[in-house]
Amino acid sequence: MNIVLASTSTLFGGNYLEYLTEEIKNLFNGIDEIVFIPFARPGGISHEEYTEKAKAFFAPLGIRVKGLHEFEYKTKAIESAQGFFTGGGNTFLLVKTLHEEHLMQVLKENIEKGKPYLGCSAGSNIGGMNMKTTNDMPIVYPSSFDCMGLVPFNINAHYLDPNPDLKHNGETRETRIKEFLTQNDVKVIGLREGNWIRNKDGQITVEGSEMTRVFEKNKEPYEIKPGTAL
Amino acid sequence: MNIVLASTSTLFGGNYLEYLTEEIKNLFNGIDEIVFIPFARPGGISHEEYTEKAKAFFAPLGIRVKGLHEFEYKTKAIESAQGFFTGGGNTFLLVKTLHEEHLMQVLKENIEKGKPYLGCSAGSNIGGMNMKTTNDMPIVYPSSFDCMGLVPFNINAHYLDPNPDLKHNGETRETRIKEFLTQNDVKVIGLREGNWIRNKDGQITVEGSEMTRVFEKNKEPYEIKPGTAL
Repeated sequence: MNIVLASTSTLFGGNYLEYLTEEIKNLFNGIDEIVFIPFARPGGISHEEYTEKAKAFFAPLGIRVKGLHEFEYKTKAIESAQGFFTGGGNTFLLVKTLHEEHLMQVLKENIEKGKPYLGCSAGSNIGGMNMKTTNDMPIVYPSSFDCMGLVPFNINAHYLDPNPDLKHNGETRETRIKEFLTQNDVKVIGLREGNWIRNKDGQITVEGSEMTRVFEKNKEPYEIKPGTAL
Repeated sequence: MNIVLASTSTLFGGNYLEYLTEEIKNLFNGIDEIVFIPFARPGGISHEEYTEKAKAFFAPLGIRVKGLHEFEYKTKAIESAQGFFTGGGNTFLLVKTLHEEHLMQVLKENIEKGKPYLGCSAGSNIGGMNMKTTNDMPIVYPSSFDCMGLVPFNINAHYLDPNPDLKHNGETRETRIKEFLTQNDVKVIGLREGNWIRNKDGQITVEGSEMTRVFEKNKEPYEIKPGTAL
C-alpha cells in the first residue's frame, strides 16, 4: 500500500495542503490524474466547489483531478483511477455516502492493490478501522460506522490537548477517547495537526512536526516521536 | 409537561447541579422519589457510581433516587416512577441503550403525561427531536438517532463560541451546526453553560444567566435573552 492519512489539510496560517506538498509529490510520483472524493463537504460546500479547490492545488504538480461525483458509474471510476484523494469535512456525511453508493469496499480494494491514497481529516478517518473516533457532528445517520481499515487502528484527527484555561465543562478529547476505549478494543492514534500516517509497502509510520499521542485499552496514553513505526 | 433541559450539570468552579438547585426544587415539587437514568456514563463511570453521585445531590432535598439499571423490569419502573433525571455523558451510549431496551418511547409517554423530567447535557439532547447535534464521540452505533422530541427543536449542549486565539483547524461549533442545517430542517438551540430550557405546561422558555444562540435553516444565527419563549 501507498497511503498518507493527514490530521488536517491546512495548518494555521498556511495554504491548502501546502505543508504536505513534498509528501504528496512522493505519494503520487509518476501519476498524472487522481479521483477526488468530495462527499464530506466541509461547511456544506458543494461537490463542484470542493473539487475546484483540490484541482487548484494539484494543477501546478501536473496532476489532473476529477471529482467522483462527476461520474455516472462511480464503481467503474474507482476501478479505472490511478490514485485517490478524499478531502476533509463531515465524516458522517462521507461514510453515509460511501456506504449508500457501495463504494467503501471497492475503494479499499483498489487502495490495497497499491493505488496511492491521500486522506485529510475525515478522509483519514475512513482509512482507520471505523469512524467511532471522529470529532464530527452526527448530522446524518450512516448505515454503518465501519471504514476501510487500511491501518489496523483508528485515527483521531485534529487531536487537541486539554486547555487548562478553558472555563467550560464539555469533555476533553482525551476523555472522549477514553470513553471509546471502555466500549471498544481498538488502538487510537491522536494525530495532532502537522502530523500524518504514512503506509508505504506495509511499513506504517507517523510523520510530521509534532509528537503523537497513542491510546490503548487498559493502558496509560503515551507519546511517540515523528518517524516511529506503528 | 414539566421539564428542565440543562446545558451542563456543573458550572466551572461549582458543585454538581448546584446552580440548578432552585429550579430543581420547583420542578420536583411534591415528589419524594425519582428514577435516575445513568446510561450515558461520563468518562466510563459505572451505573452504580453515577447513581451515587445523583443520590448525594438529591438527599438533602428530601428526594430518594433509584438507578434505572437496578430494575429487572425497566419499562415497569418508568411506568411507576414519579419523575426522572437523565445525567450527562456520552449521548451515543445513552441513545443506544434506550433504544436497545425499548425505553425511549415509554419514557417519552410518561413525561408527556406530566411526570417531571430533568436532563443535563446528553440527558437534554434526548429531549430534542434527534441526537444529530450532539458534540459527543460516536463510540457505539445506536439503532437510530431519533430522540423523544419533548421540544420541537434540537439542543446543542455546552454551546461554545469560536475562540479567535485558537491556532487549530478543527471546525467551530457554529460551522458544525451549519453543516447540520444543510442536511436537516430542524431548529437548533445553542445552549451555553449556565442556561436551560424550561417547558412548563406547554410554555417553552430559555432560562439561565447567558444569551442563547439559535440556528435555523436559511437564516443567520441570532441571540435571545433569558426568559424568551421558544
